[in-house]
Amino acid sequence: MKLDAVTDGVLSKIDDLGFKQEGAFNLRYNGQPLCHGDTEHIKIRRKEDKQGIDVYISREAQGEQVHIPVVVSASGITDVVYNDFYVEEGANVTIVAGCGIHNDGCNDSRHDGIHAFHVGKNANVTYAEKHYGEGSGTGERILNPVTQIFLEEGAVFTLDTAQIGGVDSTVRKTEVSMEADAKLFVMEKLMTHDNQTAVSDMTVEMNGAGSSAQIVSRSVAKGHSVQTFHPIAIGNALCHAHVQCDSIIMDKAQISSIPEINARDIDAQIIHEAAIGRINNEQILKLRTFGMTEEEAEAVIIEDFLA
Amino acid sequence: MKLDAVTDGVLSKIDDLGFKQEGAFNLRYNGQPLCHGDTEHIKIRRKEDKQGIDVYISREAQGEQVHIPVVVSASGITDVVYNDFYVEEGANVTIVAGCGIHNDGCNDSRHDGIHAFHVGKNANVTYAEKHYGEGSGTGERILNPVTQIFLEEGAVFTLDTAQIGGVDSTVRKTEVSMEADAKLFVMEKLMTHDNQTAVSDMTVEMNGAGSSAQIVSRSVAKGHSVQTFHPIAIGNALCHAHVQCDSIIMDKAQISSIPEINARDIDAQIIHEAAIGRINNEQILKLRTFGMTEEEAEAVIIEDFLA
Repeated sequence: MKLDAVTDGVLSKIDDLGFKQEGAFNLRYNGQPLCHGDTEHIKIRRKEDKQGIDVYISREAQGEQVHIPVVVSASGITDVVYNDFYVEEGANVTIVAGCGIHNDGCNDSRHDGIHAFHVGKNANVTYAEKHYGEGSGTGERILNPVTQIFLEEGAVFTLDTAQIGGVDSTVRKTEVSMEADAKLFVMEKLMTHDNQTAVSDMTVEMNGAGSSAQIVSRSVAKGHSVQTFHPIAIGNALCHAHVQCDSIIMDKAQISSIPEINARDIDAQIIHEAAIGRINNEQILKLRTFGMTEEEAEAVIIEDFLA
Repeated sequence: MKLDAVTDGVLSKIDDLGFKQEGAFNLRYNGQPLCHGDTEHIKIRRKEDKQGIDVYISREAQGEQVHIPVVVSASGITDVVYNDFYVEEGANVTIVAGCGIHNDGCNDSRHDGIHAFHVGKNANVTYAEKHYGEGSGTGERILNPVTQIFLEEGAVFTLDTAQIGGVDSTVRKTEVSMEADAKLFVMEKLMTHDNQTAVSDMTVEMNGAGSSAQIVSRSVAKGHSVQTFHPIAIGNALCHAHVQCDSIIMDKAQISSIPEINARDIDAQIIHEAAIGRINNEQILKLRTFGMTEEEAEAVIIEDFLA
């Protein structure tokens, strides 16, 4: 299927691995499923009771990818979609699920992607989710993702999530529950500017012995934007967690970081670190000695910080 | 005035500098003011509208101490007391204000000390507050302190607070607001055991340019005790804050740490670190090679951690 230039442009922003209409994929466009493909080991089925898809990933899937991007290019759309992933024991898969909104109109465009991952024993899932907004309109670009992750024994989940700009309002909810020896790696990156607001709530429950979580959150707030982070790590068993939130504040922005670590077992070991501050002046000075302007130096530092 | 042995015993636990009936002092006993003394530079006045005292510390007070311990030895008492401190510009004073409850009865004994500190420009206040419970009774020993601290320009406040054991239930509220160049140092130590509960809420607002806060919280939770920490550091100006919470969890205890750092100014720089974990096994092994039992080794490590 031939896609228009706006859609191709948005797809190139939100899918770092490159979206193609081949393999296992599902392209959602302006609130409708547009096209999809299966593979021998990955089957995508449209839900019958509501918007969204069920994705069945068999244990034979080893190193395969699934691409399920969402593009909203019409103004005034509210799209709520439920995607469920069933990953069999031992499967190894990368799921790429960005959403981009191109809004040239005066009405708000909104996409709420509710994703649930049921990850079987010893399966290994990498989930990349990139959020992006663009367009010349005054209508807001709103993204409210919900991500629920259920990890069985020994499952490994890497959540690589980024909001790269242009999203006026976001409320992100992430919930993870982990059985024995499950491992979670989270890298969250968030950029806000102008009058944007972003809230990220994340709850990780380590219920099984030997489970562990590494959560890294990096954010940059420019303009008059406001960010709030509320990660919660709960240890109900022998477990390890390390939560790290680093934020750069610029202009008139505000950042609030409210991590919660909760040890309910003597063998729970949980560490949190958070820092909020402006760009290091020495770094800027150093880059300016290379001939950059202050703005160029800032851009380089921020790009590096969110890389 | 001759004090009884129980009172003397409690006073020795809660006043590290040694309580004497001389200099500026006020001893509160079973819900009543028992005895007090002034100095040339420190005047203590009983409030007329409610329980409590006003303490006036003049700029001439340099290196002086004020001791205002509270002892509750009767079962079934609820004592709410309001103490206000007015510290003049440039004064330098140490205020020692512990509370000890000896409860041999079956009714709850409770003391709520509400303290407000109005600290003038460039004054330097050290406030030590030690909480302790003992006694053979089944009645609870309850302490709910409220501490409000207002720091004018350049004021320095050191808050050294400890709950050393025996307190069945505590809800601690601390609120600090800081003008330009004011400095706050907090060292909070907390030990709970058996079925005790402890909640500590602390809000520090850095409103003036150049203000800074260093907050260190250390706690040990044994038995089935439950602790919750909720420190909030808010930067409304050029300021620095460092919040560090370290907790040792033992037995079936639970600890929750919910720090909040909130930067509302580009020049606010706020760092938080928190860690919850069990006693380091290597430290125990090392001490056991010196001939200690495991219990003795644990006791030494905890004592050192809360020293």
